Amino acid sequence: MNPDTPSNFSCPIPIREYASVMLAHGGGGKLTHQLIEQLFLPMFDNAALAQRHDGAVMEFGAHKLAFTTDSYVVRPIFFPGGDIGTLAVNGTVNDLAMCGARPLYLSAGFIIEEGFPIDDLRRVVASMSRAAKEAGVQLVTGDTKVVDHGKGDGVYVNTAGIGVVQADRSIAPAAVRPGDAVLLSGDIGRHGIAIMAVREGLEFESAIESDCASVAGLVMALFEAGIEVHCLRDLTRGGLASALVEIAEVARIHVGVRETAIAVRDDVRGACEILGFDPLYVANEGRFIAFIPARDVDRALALMRAHPLGDGAAVIGSVSEQPAGLVTMRSSIGAGRIIDMISGEQLPRIC
Amino acid sequence: MNPDTPSNFSCPIPIREYASVMLAHGGGGKLTHQLIEQLFLPMFDNAALAQRHDGAVMEFGAHKLAFTTDSYVVRPIFFPGGDIGTLAVNGTVNDLAMCGARPLYLSAGFIIEEGFPIDDLRRVVASMSRAAKEAGVQLVTGDTKVVDHGKGDGVYVNTAGIGVVQADRSIAPAAVRPGDAVLLSGDIGRHGIAIMAVREGLEFESAIESDCASVAGLVMALFEAGIEVHCLRDLTRGGLASALVEIAEVARIHVGVRETAIAVRDDVRGACEILGFDPLYVANEGRFIAFIPARDVDRALALMRAHPLGDGAAVIGSVSEQPAGLVTMRSSIGAGRIIDMISGEQLPRIC
Repeated sequence: MNPDTPSNFSCPIPIREYASVMLAHGGGGKLTHQLIEQLFLPMFDNAALAQRHDGAVMEFGAHKLAFTTDSYVVRPIFFPGGDIGTLAVNGTVNDLAMCGARPLYLSAGFIIEEGFPIDDLRRVVASMSRAAKEAGVQLVTGDTKVVDHGKGDGVYVNTAGIGVVQADRSIAPAAVRPGDAVLLSGDIGRHGIAIMAVREGLEFESAIESDCASVAGLVMALFEAGIEVHCLRDLTRGGLASALVEIAEVARIHVGVRETAIAVRDDVRGACEILGFDPLYVANEGRFIAFIPARDVDRALALMRAHPLGDGAAVIGSVSEQPAGLVTMRSSIGAGRIIDMISGEQLPRIC
Repeated sequence: MNPDTPSNFSCPIPIREYASVMLAHGGGGKLTHQLIEQLFLPMFDNAALAQRHDGAVMEFGAHKLAFTTDSYVVRPIFFPGGDIGTLAVNGTVNDLAMCGARPLYLSAGFIIEEGFPIDDLRRVVASMSRAAKEAGVQLVTGDTKVVDHGKGDGVYVNTAGIGVVQADRSIAPAAVRPGDAVLLSGDIGRHGIAIMAVREGLEFESAIESDCASVAGLVMALFEAGIEVHCLRDLTRGGLASALVEIAEVARIHVGVRETAIAVRDDVRGACEILGFDPLYVANEGRFIAFIPARDVDRALALMRAHPLGDGAAVIGSVSEQPAGLVTMRSSIGAGRIIDMISGEQLPRIC
């Protein structure tokens, strides 16, 4: 690994002490980071990976090109507000947007379990087609593999995406500066709770729907308005807390947030209490944070609030130099606490 | 679907008559094509997909960019001559090369089954790192998901790849012309037999090793020498036969091949006889066919034979106008037969 790249995610147990992969290695918390930092990054040492961002940005002729991938293994495949197909398109589109890129092209790789109903496959593919049209991207190449019954779980979908970077500066954790405000695009926790409510058989007066959506249009509007965006991060696996901690650690800055500024719907908060979850760690699929210099905050907020996917946008905190690498939160009664990444497994197979 | 695009793969049973996905839908034969033609293509109608090629080619500023993806589900994960990691890098690198593109960047998506040994994961990732270095590509972005024990099979790997097109003309089935020669880069059947020999416990004097390798360097040498390449296709799932039939059907031309010109090693032929396989349909991971106008054949052959991955290159046949859409083969005793795609499942989970 390049010794100049930050690599100080706190890892209580070195990876060599685990003999085998656990569900928590895929949960987006500490164990996922340990796997990335101690196994993947040393093997593939390059500048793009060293950015520790949602995607890679590379020079390509006169353009900068963003490239990203995610596999989707969500269970159940169909859930209120979307399905694995909607997720596979919007998740990758959003990762490109988080690199400051306008999403252009997607690939799709399907791993289908023998016996999966053709009608369900058709429904997933139709969702992908619809989501791609809505996000303004073309699905241009794909692959299908079938595995034996009992060696999969219905269908897994991988998408990779290519976008062209719109921002004239680097959008990455390293660009975050003391004094930046942290903007959150809306209420949190709906995707994770929509999934868990189905799995646990929870009943609500009206179903909690996933927030799954492409935020690329909203993000591009920030660039078109000339807002000086320093960093963007969507709040998927590991939720708001993990996104903040990752950025604070990589950028070696302190992020202070106010709990009262973070919107959580009452039904989502209620479900979190029943299920024993902290909404800060629950996955979202249509929410993001933006690090923006104080002088651009009013314009950015006005612009986000005028967009249907940002109408609940708010400033939730700000960046300072010290204590570097930490995220702290002040509660409604004024108490402070350190926000850490989650250690174990909170929500397996949420995306 | 665009009515102008060719769509005449012979499909004996319409997809709606299957209620669920079968292993053969992933085998690279007729059922795979049926799934693509009748389910995926109508949902994602665009010019790139309509090319029916190993990857998509899109304009990007002053460059043409190639983009492709494959998921790898091979079993066993480790086999003579490679493993799922070698395959995941070389397979996608080769698909880019088949588009006439110099491979530049790869993504990697891992779907790991809970309980998979960390040491095996490390071995797979090390193979990917080595193969990427050998092929001259950078793995710049990735993703890891973990699924419950019993919902996967050790590890599945998806790679997507980006390359920059070197050819100054379109390399695609539609570019094939009557009079073109069909060049095969070497002997066939080794990858599939290497895998099946392990699965079936066959013992040979010396193990048959997979031919898994990046052919990008060899292909780029053809372009650098100014050879007028019309179409390229690697001979993975479905083998040489399926590659020829796909191109003949899409290009609406006739391909005539001579059986005696197609090299099969004695041990591979022997294993095929024991296992009941036709080497024409067995998967390769380092072999390709090239359609080249007669005037460039001698130069192309000399150039390929000077490369370690093409030292067995040969002209195996030629293209004529009629009967359009058909592949025929003349045997060593002069008998002719029509080569068709395979209908059922010959070699599941070979790549």
